[in-house]
Amino acid sequence: MADREKLPALLRVLNGERLDPPPIWIMRQAGRYLPEYRELRKRAKSFLDFCYSPSLATEAVMQPLRRFPLDAAILFSDILVVPDALGQKVWFVEGEGPRLEPLIGRDSWTLGDPAKAIQRLAPVYETVERIKANLDPSVALIGFAGGPWTVATYMLQGRGGDKDEARRAAYQSPRAVEDLLDALVETTAQHLAAQVRAGADCLQIFESWSEGLSPALFQKLIVLPTRKLVTRLRELGVTAPIIGFPRGAGAQIAAYAQETGITALGVDTQTPASYAFDVAPEGMALQGNLDPQTLVVGGEAMEDAAREVLIAFRGMPHIFNLGHGITPEATPENVEQLVRLVKSWA
Amino acid sequence: MADREKLPALLRVLNGERLDPPPIWIMRQAGRYLPEYRELRKRAKSFLDFCYSPSLATEAVMQPLRRFPLDAAILFSDILVVPDALGQKVWFVEGEGPRLEPLIGRDSWTLGDPAKAIQRLAPVYETVERIKANLDPSVALIGFAGGPWTVATYMLQGRGGDKDEARRAAYQSPRAVEDLLDALVETTAQHLAAQVRAGADCLQIFESWSEGLSPALFQKLIVLPTRKLVTRLRELGVTAPIIGFPRGAGAQIAAYAQETGITALGVDTQTPASYAFDVAPEGMALQGNLDPQTLVVGGEAMEDAAREVLIAFRGMPHIFNLGHGITPEATPENVEQLVRLVKSWA
Repeated sequence: MADREKLPALLRVLNGERLDPPPIWIMRQAGRYLPEYRELRKRAKSFLDFCYSPSLATEAVMQPLRRFPLDAAILFSDILVVPDALGQKVWFVEGEGPRLEPLIGRDSWTLGDPAKAIQRLAPVYETVERIKANLDPSVALIGFAGGPWTVATYMLQGRGGDKDEARRAAYQSPRAVEDLLDALVETTAQHLAAQVRAGADCLQIFESWSEGLSPALFQKLIVLPTRKLVTRLRELGVTAPIIGFPRGAGAQIAAYAQETGITALGVDTQTPASYAFDVAPEGMALQGNLDPQTLVVGGEAMEDAAREVLIAFRGMPHIFNLGHGITPEATPENVEQLVRLVKSWA
Repeated sequence: MADREKLPALLRVLNGERLDPPPIWIMRQAGRYLPEYRELRKRAKSFLDFCYSPSLATEAVMQPLRRFPLDAAILFSDILVVPDALGQKVWFVEGEGPRLEPLIGRDSWTLGDPAKAIQRLAPVYETVERIKANLDPSVALIGFAGGPWTVATYMLQGRGGDKDEARRAAYQSPRAVEDLLDALVETTAQHLAAQVRAGADCLQIFESWSEGLSPALFQKLIVLPTRKLVTRLRELGVTAPIIGFPRGAGAQIAAYAQETGITALGVDTQTPASYAFDVAPEGMALQGNLDPQTLVVGGEAMEDAAREVLIAFRGMPHIFNLGHGITPEATPENVEQLVRLVKSWA
């Protein structure tokens, strides 16, 4: 019991416990809504340089924890370090987002070796070690990666936005896309396992582009690769809980929660807590799902919306979070008010 | 029985019948994938002029029907004729989409009079009359409008894309947004009723921007205004079936199907048929949901995907359609092949 009590609240809920108040962390909590982050960001030439600098990335992770009594820290990195490490050119256009030299249009999609990619990602694991050394033991450390399909869409199209080209590739070149997903499964599994070895307590898979897929494609592009990824992680000896976050999957969340082997389910803003609870396996922790725009708006509207989330997930193993990443327009004051509200909830 | 047999197949399914093969039409079937449409389009200076020309709009509607044995025609118009008729400036930027002078930022959101708006929309109703006069009686004529929230987001933000600003307005100025939605409910009801008087057999409400709303906002911005719209239409004496299409609503489709009073449910690509069937009221017709990208890809991949749709909806009152509008990159040959496949399905 004593040991159990010492476990960070986030990990207790991931184990299926129901805590009142629920633990809280905020997707993209180390980010542009913090003035100190914007200052820190200036110290690296490019966003990737920033991600690959253990000192800057560690500092970014610690910034929100100094302000708010959050229950988790999350590695500062990007889901596109994986294609970068696999040898695909990746860069970030200010105010527009990431760009890659797209795979679509190339004669072949030969990618680098997963083991070499992991070597290139050594600074990321050093960052995890440094964060862990700095962290209060009551705060859980989350490692992460993009879901195979989400990363593949960037790699295929060379950019975000609509996923039409990537979807067409899945219809037109199913074998090549399957091979790409398999390569991503292996590299991502190695990448996540290395984060756990470096000190991550649990993992989150961001499947940010889960929407718009027919049931057959959702099975092929999301459910199957995620199941392979989870299975591979377990083969690699990783026992850490895995939060799967299939943003925009709508009524396909059922298949995702039931068939992939994930430990916990990230719930997006539009998904009712009761639906997530009904389709998730018995006792699965649910994480979410406040509308990030409420942290821009603040005041009573934010508090009402936060209370709606708390009430909707009441009685379930719940981790309070947003339904999507916090936006640069949010204010630290609103985050503070939100954390206070959640922490005083009973 | 004789009368019933004469009813267009689409209307029979809207009445709850199960037909094998199902009737088929294609969202945006009069559109840029047809070379004759692209030619016709050149004859109007602006897209709105095109929509307001009964001769051009009627010709656009008839074009796909000359090529393919479709079971329905749909009025050629745009969901933004409503704000245009209400006095908000609307224009279309080639390759980018619609632009409006946004309501957000204005001191007040005073809109024009619904009755006057309907007068300005007279050319639309003349178009409906002309189509009806040209149509084979076995082909159903569908009138349409945008859902109140979808139209409101354009009006608030002045453009499509992310709906963050519109959502913030809903938190910050709930009364003003409610008033806007009420004005849209009244004008849209009048607009749809006028289409039915002019000859439309049934109606579709395009709630194209249903995604990303918290359950509380979905109730306030989508379910309640749609219920008011359906109720108002019935008050106005409209008995025509109403297809509601809440694209991207995910697991909130349940509330939409059960609480708005719509007759039939448009199902987007990512929503499993079995889920739609489970949450829709007994006997409700379901319309959808082939991935539009398959009509770009064509061949076996398209045929496989079409058969998956036919199989998924088998045994339900089903109208075959896409899960989203057909894209300009689709080919008429692929559409022909699709229609042939569906028509020979048994």
